Amino acid sequence: MKYRILLSGAFVIILIGVTILFAAGSDLHEQAVANFSPLPESILSKDSPITPEKVTLGKMLFYDTRISVDRTVSCFKCHWINLYGTDGLRKAIGNHYRINPRNAPTVFNAAGQISQHWVGNRTTVEDQAKKALLGAGSYGLASYEDAKKNLKAITGYDALFREAFPQDTAPVSVDNFASAIGAFERTLVTPSDFDAYLKGDTTALSPEAKAGLKTFIGIGCVGCHGGTYVGGEQYQKFGLTGPYWKATGSESIDSGRYVITHDESDLYKFKVPMLRNVAMTSPYFHDGSVDSLVDAIRIMGTLQLDMTLDASQTEAIAAFLKSLTGDIPETARAVPALPPGE
Amino acid sequence: MKYRILLSGAFVIILIGVTILFAAGSDLHEQAVANFSPLPESILSKDSPITPEKVTLGKMLFYDTRISVDRTVSCFKCHWINLYGTDGLRKAIGNHYRINPRNAPTVFNAAGQISQHWVGNRTTVEDQAKKALLGAGSYGLASYEDAKKNLKAITGYDALFREAFPQDTAPVSVDNFASAIGAFERTLVTPSDFDAYLKGDTTALSPEAKAGLKTFIGIGCVGCHGGTYVGGEQYQKFGLTGPYWKATGSESIDSGRYVITHDESDLYKFKVPMLRNVAMTSPYFHDGSVDSLVDAIRIMGTLQLDMTLDASQTEAIAAFLKSLTGDIPETARAVPALPPGE
Repeated sequence: MKYRILLSGAFVIILIGVTILFAAGSDLHEQAVANFSPLPESILSKDSPITPEKVTLGKMLFYDTRISVDRTVSCFKCHWINLYGTDGLRKAIGNHYRINPRNAPTVFNAAGQISQHWVGNRTTVEDQAKKALLGAGSYGLASYEDAKKNLKAITGYDALFREAFPQDTAPVSVDNFASAIGAFERTLVTPSDFDAYLKGDTTALSPEAKAGLKTFIGIGCVGCHGGTYVGGEQYQKFGLTGPYWKATGSESIDSGRYVITHDESDLYKFKVPMLRNVAMTSPYFHDGSVDSLVDAIRIMGTLQLDMTLDASQTEAIAAFLKSLTGDIPETARAVPALPPGE
Repeated sequence: MKYRILLSGAFVIILIGVTILFAAGSDLHEQAVANFSPLPESILSKDSPITPEKVTLGKMLFYDTRISVDRTVSCFKCHWINLYGTDGLRKAIGNHYRINPRNAPTVFNAAGQISQHWVGNRTTVEDQAKKALLGAGSYGLASYEDAKKNLKAITGYDALFREAFPQDTAPVSVDNFASAIGAFERTLVTPSDFDAYLKGDTTALSPEAKAGLKTFIGIGCVGCHGGTYVGGEQYQKFGLTGPYWKATGSESIDSGRYVITHDESDLYKFKVPMLRNVAMTSPYFHDGSVDSLVDAIRIMGTLQLDMTLDASQTEAIAAFLKSLTGDIPETARAVPALPPGE
């Protein structure tokens, strides 16, 4: 009897041990799948369907500075393809060297977010592209009429707009400018090792990246940085444990979404940025105040989770975040020749 | 006897007629071959050999704004690939929105010229790339040491410089920056229909382009705009028949090469620009004062040849010049991802 109890006790212990071991392996993948989704092939919109003709035109317009007030600003200026849709500056610089209030967010995978810009004052990528035409710190045009005039001045665009918008009687329009750029940006999707992992290839992440993923989920980063885009789905106060600018060394204090809503509860709230390709898009935060990814991770631990992360934790999270780096999207790779300016 | 004379007379007349007809067809091609040469595959330099590793690195550096004083200027800024190595501006704009004295000349086929820049104050493309680092209106750095520091700050470049310059013990240097960019630019060659024509395919040019070529040679444009690059081989006074600024409507008077040599005979002399891809690189002249290619042709007729060209002549010459438009070079087409800024 005593022997049987001992035996069954040993069996239970072995069973628990196997379960723990099994859980440690499969659990992480299950947790990942529960918290994240792989990227789609492109980011669809009912209102702005993607066609090859629109993508071709949109990509050209994306690069064309000649539409802006001083012929120096295009989407590319602040969202250059080479740096994964960002510009390497703390704050974006627009027409006549006007410095924008915030860091240029990436256009890669951007169409999937709840809104555009750090404070969500643009709805879709199309809305962003259209309003950029009048943005004081971007294209700087006085009116949409001026934008249309500049588009029409480059006569080579006429045929391209007609091909992209065959139903329209007057296809060269600001809305179609935005729709074409939107269609192009909706193709800027960057699947990475992490997507392969989510789809079932558990060897796609290195052991260090897996350790980072485990920490990322375990300590609660995933609470905000989850979903398909590892962020981009909600607004949160930056600095839950104290003023963010003391941790980031920011040169000025940005009230965040409050500047749009004038609602006290939005003070210092920003859209949670996507972390797709984050290892390629230094400097970090809404004001580009922090250069290093590891520093940014450490600061987030302090400011949002009230945790002091040690070097092994920040390095592991950085390894996980590096697994979010995809390739430059196929549609964006070849530089398009633009119609001449005559 | 009288009959025989008449017969041989008729024979001579027929012979002359055939010769004239034959000459009208073959002559133009012969004249073209005598005055122009097809583009090489790449523009070689004994001092700066082209290797794939140098081209890869050079292309990345070509785009990278993070080396410049305010992180806004790269070669690409003034020589964007999309507009055939120009920027669509009257005068190039550099760091801190500093406006340069002249229009940005193309980097396509540029390595083949006698010198770089409108007044020839840069020798090779490598010399241009190196000195651009200190140029007040370009990268704006205080010293080559600063340039090296900025290059080293992007640690991902270290391995790329080592691959491109395997013999060097300290490969991350300003000279190697210039050499890599030079190697890339030496591949930016744009063969066009005109090259096919020069190589013997006489159907490669349209009848109008041939008429334009005939006029181009016949009235003397070719005197300066000849050779492989259809220019770029000599310095000439702009405005042989009178002040150029009266014809171009220039906002200010540029003394040209005189500002470099302080030699009275260089007053208003500029390097004769290449006309390769000229139809794609509006606006025209050293100050970008003229928008339209046809206007530029007409003005050149007046200023340099003392001729009033009619519309059929300018249109035909424009058709010929359009045959000088090649494709964006293969090496330049794919946008390179850059090492992140950490």
